[in-house]
Amino acid sequence: MKLRIDVVTLFPQAIEPYLNASILGKAQEKGIVKIKVHNLRSFTLDRYKTVDDYPFGGGPGMVLKPEPLWRAVKFIESYTVSTPRVILTSPQGSLFSQEKARELAQEEHLLFLCGRYQGVDERVITLTGAEEISIGDYILSGGELAALVMIEATVRLIPGVLGDEESIKADSFYKEGLGPPQFTRPRVFQGLEVPEVLLSGNHALIEEWRKKKAEEKTARIRPELLPVAKDKKE
Amino acid sequence: MKLRIDVVTLFPQAIEPYLNASILGKAQEKGIVKIKVHNLRSFTLDRYKTVDDYPFGGGPGMVLKPEPLWRAVKFIESYTVSTPRVILTSPQGSLFSQEKARELAQEEHLLFLCGRYQGVDERVITLTGAEEISIGDYILSGGELAALVMIEATVRLIPGVLGDEESIKADSFYKEGLGPPQFTRPRVFQGLEVPEVLLSGNHALIEEWRKKKAEEKTARIRPELLPVAKDKKE
Repeated sequence: MKLRIDVVTLFPQAIEPYLNASILGKAQEKGIVKIKVHNLRSFTLDRYKTVDDYPFGGGPGMVLKPEPLWRAVKFIESYTVSTPRVILTSPQGSLFSQEKARELAQEEHLLFLCGRYQGVDERVITLTGAEEISIGDYILSGGELAALVMIEATVRLIPGVLGDEESIKADSFYKEGLGPPQFTRPRVFQGLEVPEVLLSGNHALIEEWRKKKAEEKTARIRPELLPVAKDKKE
Repeated sequence: MKLRIDVVTLFPQAIEPYLNASILGKAQEKGIVKIKVHNLRSFTLDRYKTVDDYPFGGGPGMVLKPEPLWRAVKFIESYTVSTPRVILTSPQGSLFSQEKARELAQEEHLLFLCGRYQGVDERVITLTGAEEISIGDYILSGGELAALVMIEATVRLIPGVLGDEESIKADSFYKEGLGPPQFTRPRVFQGLEVPEVLLSGNHALIEEWRKKKAEEKTARIRPELLPVAKDKKE
């Protein structure tokens, strides 16, 4: 096993099917990754299984209490040999990126705490040394999808997880900007033809065309990714 | 019903449990949203249920064929009264944001096509007028999680979906930058005390403290979100 992943969440049954399907399921079947999902409620001690409470100082929303999260981390640490790197999914975190995925893919043990409601008691972050990471500038109801996104982006980078048909080498963001448009059979579909150049067999011409199309699209949709734009900023 | 959502994917069983749980499940139970997941393979016509093929012009990876996606869109359009806004989840798209979520929350009908492998035949995008949207600068194995992220961020903005305990008003990104640290009971946990000011009952002081803490955190983790940084860029 190359990577152990623990996830602490209020909705195990919502995310387990995804973790056991497709790429992540196969990575687990191959024994490369082991993913264990824990229900935060099972770390409560009161009869109502309370996980949240009102924020001190007032304000809308509820805050995840420190005890159950802390107990979950201690429990996971107690039965694993490796010391987990703790990540809290949070809109208050640094932005997740392909670079961060490559960094996480080097680890032996990741522990994701899924935030909920209006936040998490800050002392959990202090005590566990959790790194707060956000997957983008939008608001989700909880950190479950953020954890799944980080797990998928990370696990597929571990050697042996992907087959040849989905090569890491072809991924966008390994190069500058977006990728070129893609075409497959049939040659004519609904009256639209595949660009001639792609049928030419001339690899130099094809590469040139793809580069040009990719740059045009990047300039139109994500101009900030172009090397020129980056130079200007610096 | 305020919003109808269709999702076309190769992995219906991986995402349906999430769509039927928590906030999204409740929104469906309340009749505010209706979400239907379609298996892309059921729109293939060959006995092998082929959904992908090699890219014209060569290169690694496989490309989703145009016919099954096109048939799926036509099928959904044929049995719904509303005309769907078609969204293709793709690393080659514009970046999803809270602003985009607010825009999508105004729609009546959204149709998400989940991209896979190295891409989708470009003619599907041309013919359906699909908008390519990415949830962030990292590579996922497929568009399923991206669709779930956009659906969750969008649906929770529809009036009636969220209860009082999870007020939209308190969300980060409605204001500039990140939110302040949060604390709840107990007052002392593992030797760490809740900051005095939050227990003071002095709302002006509390607001001042929160603003200061939020600005400090934004400056440390996401300096580009600070109004000062924005002014500098312009």
